[in-house]
Amino acid sequence: MGVFQSEGKVYQPAAEIDLSAGSHEPYTHANVKAPRVAGLLVKIFVWILELWIVGPAVVYILLKDNLVHKLVSFAEVPESPMFRASHSVEDLQEHEVTCVDPYLTPPERVKEAVNCLPESLETALLTGFKRWTIQDFSTAYNLGETSPLKVAKRFLSALEESSVPPLKMAFFISYDADDILRQATESSQRYEKGTPISILDGVLVAIKDEIDCLPYPTTGGTKWLHKRRPCTEDAACVKKLRSCGAVLVGKTNMHELGAGTSGINPHYGPTRNPYNINKVSGGSSSGSAASVCAGLCPVALGVDGGGSVRMPAALCGVIGFKPTSGRLPNSGVLPLNWTVGMPGILAGTVEDTLIIYAAIAGDTATCQPKSLLPEFNLPRLKSTRLLPNIKFAKYGKWFNDSSADIRSCCDGALQMLSKHYGWKTVDVTLPEIEEMRLAHYVTIGSECYTFLGTHLEKINYGEIGWDARIALRIYSSFSSRDYLNAQRIRNRQMQFHKEIFRRADVIVTPTTGVTAYPLQSDSFNTGELDYINAAALIRFSISGNFLGLPAVSVLAGYDTEGMPIGLQFIGRPWSEATLLHIAFAMQTLFIQSYRKPEVFYDMLKMEKA
Amino acid sequence: MGVFQSEGKVYQPAAEIDLSAGSHEPYTHANVKAPRVAGLLVKIFVWILELWIVGPAVVYILLKDNLVHKLVSFAEVPESPMFRASHSVEDLQEHEVTCVDPYLTPPERVKEAVNCLPESLETALLTGFKRWTIQDFSTAYNLGETSPLKVAKRFLSALEESSVPPLKMAFFISYDADDILRQATESSQRYEKGTPISILDGVLVAIKDEIDCLPYPTTGGTKWLHKRRPCTEDAACVKKLRSCGAVLVGKTNMHELGAGTSGINPHYGPTRNPYNINKVSGGSSSGSAASVCAGLCPVALGVDGGGSVRMPAALCGVIGFKPTSGRLPNSGVLPLNWTVGMPGILAGTVEDTLIIYAAIAGDTATCQPKSLLPEFNLPRLKSTRLLPNIKFAKYGKWFNDSSADIRSCCDGALQMLSKHYGWKTVDVTLPEIEEMRLAHYVTIGSECYTFLGTHLEKINYGEIGWDARIALRIYSSFSSRDYLNAQRIRNRQMQFHKEIFRRADVIVTPTTGVTAYPLQSDSFNTGELDYINAAALIRFSISGNFLGLPAVSVLAGYDTEGMPIGLQFIGRPWSEATLLHIAFAMQTLFIQSYRKPEVFYDMLKMEKA
Repeated sequence: MGVFQSEGKVYQPAAEIDLSAGSHEPYTHANVKAPRVAGLLVKIFVWILELWIVGPAVVYILLKDNLVHKLVSFAEVPESPMFRASHSVEDLQEHEVTCVDPYLTPPERVKEAVNCLPESLETALLTGFKRWTIQDFSTAYNLGETSPLKVAKRFLSALEESSVPPLKMAFFISYDADDILRQATESSQRYEKGTPISILDGVLVAIKDEIDCLPYPTTGGTKWLHKRRPCTEDAACVKKLRSCGAVLVGKTNMHELGAGTSGINPHYGPTRNPYNINKVSGGSSSGSAASVCAGLCPVALGVDGGGSVRMPAALCGVIGFKPTSGRLPNSGVLPLNWTVGMPGILAGTVEDTLIIYAAIAGDTATCQPKSLLPEFNLPRLKSTRLLPNIKFAKYGKWFNDSSADIRSCCDGALQMLSKHYGWKTVDVTLPEIEEMRLAHYVTIGSECYTFLGTHLEKINYGEIGWDARIALRIYSSFSSRDYLNAQRIRNRQMQFHKEIFRRADVIVTPTTGVTAYPLQSDSFNTGELDYINAAALIRFSISGNFLGLPAVSVLAGYDTEGMPIGLQFIGRPWSEATLLHIAFAMQTLFIQSYRKPEVFYDMLKMEKA
Repeated sequence: MGVFQSEGKVYQPAAEIDLSAGSHEPYTHANVKAPRVAGLLVKIFVWILELWIVGPAVVYILLKDNLVHKLVSFAEVPESPMFRASHSVEDLQEHEVTCVDPYLTPPERVKEAVNCLPESLETALLTGFKRWTIQDFSTAYNLGETSPLKVAKRFLSALEESSVPPLKMAFFISYDADDILRQATESSQRYEKGTPISILDGVLVAIKDEIDCLPYPTTGGTKWLHKRRPCTEDAACVKKLRSCGAVLVGKTNMHELGAGTSGINPHYGPTRNPYNINKVSGGSSSGSAASVCAGLCPVALGVDGGGSVRMPAALCGVIGFKPTSGRLPNSGVLPLNWTVGMPGILAGTVEDTLIIYAAIAGDTATCQPKSLLPEFNLPRLKSTRLLPNIKFAKYGKWFNDSSADIRSCCDGALQMLSKHYGWKTVDVTLPEIEEMRLAHYVTIGSECYTFLGTHLEKINYGEIGWDARIALRIYSSFSSRDYLNAQRIRNRQMQFHKEIFRRADVIVTPTTGVTAYPLQSDSFNTGELDYINAAALIRFSISGNFLGLPAVSVLAGYDTEGMPIGLQFIGRPWSEATLLHIAFAMQTLFIQSYRKPEVFYDMLKMEKA
């Protein structure tokens, strides 16, 4: 049928594939054949791709070389399509949890979360570096040691300092000093009257610029999207936080349209890693991860469509938590990827992650009867030690497809968990990792391009970043057959993972295959095409999005250059409480070795004795 | 972005559209700009479409001219995609029904259905034409007036006669006389012992060649698909019928790959209409409809992806019944259209439709708890007269987009139902009918092409019928954006229909916009491209597939040339029992005026006194 025809892979039925440790299923390394390209070469590449006839031919060759044709487009797949990563409500057997009424208000649920926290006495014994937590701020406010207004002013001055030379951290896209100070004043007044709404009252929270938050436009990291899709109300997550008294401090920087993993935004600046300002922060929730890392705020919201909360969290050494698809409400989140994107939480500690999770979880707008909603369990972190055996599943070939530093750090962390908690690891095989990555890419690209579709036709393409233009050009080439075959691959992976979760409770991987890599100035205006690093960053993220499984990234150590390394835990559907228990165990083991970033702002410093 | 760019329609949010009778929403007539083409011109068209570069350009122009670009591809749609026509289980308020345990065996369920039937005394008073029913055969078997073996022999001789000149009806693709006689012999022996399995024991049932049935290959109307996808076991529906003692008599003819509505199959012959052998039977379940019409068997199974059970049923003057998506098990049905195709039943009477429905409904293989299954109601046809008011919704502009004969016949039928049963009609507006047709076309085409994908690359294209090749070429051109926008349109239509079902119980339309039209011999080898007739045939069918709503077509009268006219009722999800009640009311009113087809075989004639 033509000169370019590829032979497609013939997939065997998923039920027949061997998932045991000794399986003959091959581990396919990402077949990324492309050198790093930035600056003028990116512009030339864009110009070629946007040519008539030649452009599509080049895209065709790219997709063929990168095995999209072989593994997706022309593949023979026995399974029928699975379009959504939706999970039926099952009876979970979670331990050391409090089951909470999902119809409680956010402040009520926050209260339940606080009841789950361990005694703050433990953290007072720390000698190493620690970031201020929600509890620290709340206590300081209650004791009159400081006020939300003072903290907000400190935040604004820190943000300003970080935005300009020599730092130019590019944490935020927009922030409104008047609005922030107004919120902080109102919160301070509540504390003066002795009537704070919740432990979150007066706590600063940053919002990724992919989530609606008044009074800001939602740019999605672009120069134009907010003009075509105005922000008219808070997203549901933001509404819930606001109802708890949180102070929303602006919209954090992100990779344009979420179409990349470096966090280099040509319009708003490359978000720099607070651990080393000459390295990337990762993306696409770059500003959220970096802001929390740098101490500007204890928590932030992000959006995770292909690891975009967990990857920058790992690179910046903070918690990145992505609940099960459907656990958090989607309203007011840019619909850039209908079936794979979902909001997530970035925080300095597991306690803070839990508080935010409790506040925002639950899509009660659907008014479903409680019997149809998943159990809403909060982990009693005070009794994590009492958890019965948790079994980790590890696919060695995949786990080891990471840098030496990452491998040894993550293996060491698993040994510590085994030694101190008795949690063992079983070896498994998770087949078709690369196939899943490509199927996810076809899915997220098709959905992004379809959502943007008519908008793109009405704007000047010069308003779009150069690297985003390349992504969009590739996205626009996917056929309905590509998309449908990708959904069949989703079906396969769902079956594989269901089977793995019969053999273990949690899948464990490094969060990323590389740590934060150098920022190069030739990429600042054009973005960069560094598919080798991009593939390494996204390597372990896909199942969380494609299959909607809950996942958390926790700091496990640092590489030889002092850059953070994250360890990721992926759980069964609806098992967020179990994941937070495990994350807390990790935090307990490693918190003494936490290091302070190069760029760090102490929001409580001058007020505390 | 290029010379060919179309302006896309900007859709307003579905919730804001006015569905009342006085709505300003326009009714868009199908914009089909293409004269009828058959014979050599079809081959030339295929040759052009399969050219490199020129072919895709021609397809592009076709899609643009037929408004696919404006209404689907480049449209701006506020809604998110809805990928499946799946319906949650709701509390139905159905009247005069028996609620049946879905986990009863097929023979047990058939018994429940028999308990719902009216007294056969009523039908004995008929003076007009009637087809023999399941009850007639069963009674004759029980009384020893005839036997399954005798009926089977009569069937085989009738089928042979109908296959050859001068008739050449092309009812069947394959039938195995030995296998049929073996089944019939075993059934006869059970009657001799006095141990028939159920009322279906020894009753002849034909199966569309899109459904697996041993010992036959499943050709899908092609010359090659059965070689690449061998049939290894009965489909679930067929298993259930066999377990009731039914005699499966072979695989009926169909439009190749279901990719058309005329029933003209270039490999196996055009299925002729028993009411006029020089007219089409309609498709794609052409052979199933025509076989029942001609009295060869009282019931047959078909598959309905775009009206393919209801359209030929209407043209052939028999019942065509398509339950809610998910009501019948899909296993063993060719997966030619994952999200819009479902099996359906063709029968001469409502009683027989009910018996088959009871036998095959329920996808108990999923082993879901009863609380999660939809209510399985069977209509007590003996008390149809006791039904409280049923409200019909009619969209006048759409309803009247049909031939004059159809309009007056269907309007007359509604008046009769009002006069005799008190069931009234309210006027509504159902917006975006044409948009839905195009979105469904993109969906069914994409899914068909993806399923066939790798098979097509491995066969000689000469094995595919010429008109099917054109369809496949168009199907292969759809982008993932086209597909995703079509799913957003599905979401809109789901919302419109939900709202309509708050205002009425059942939507009523003519089943087709034209009656059976002439067969022209220039189409026999190549198929034909008669998009004007095709669009008229499919005009009222789409919501049944795209939204998975249950629908039934019932004979309402005949046109001035004596060709049957069908009236269609579309119900709420899971309301099959209500639809069968309404169909039975129609049958009661009109059965005295039923006419005998030109080609008809009496399977019981010589044995009855």
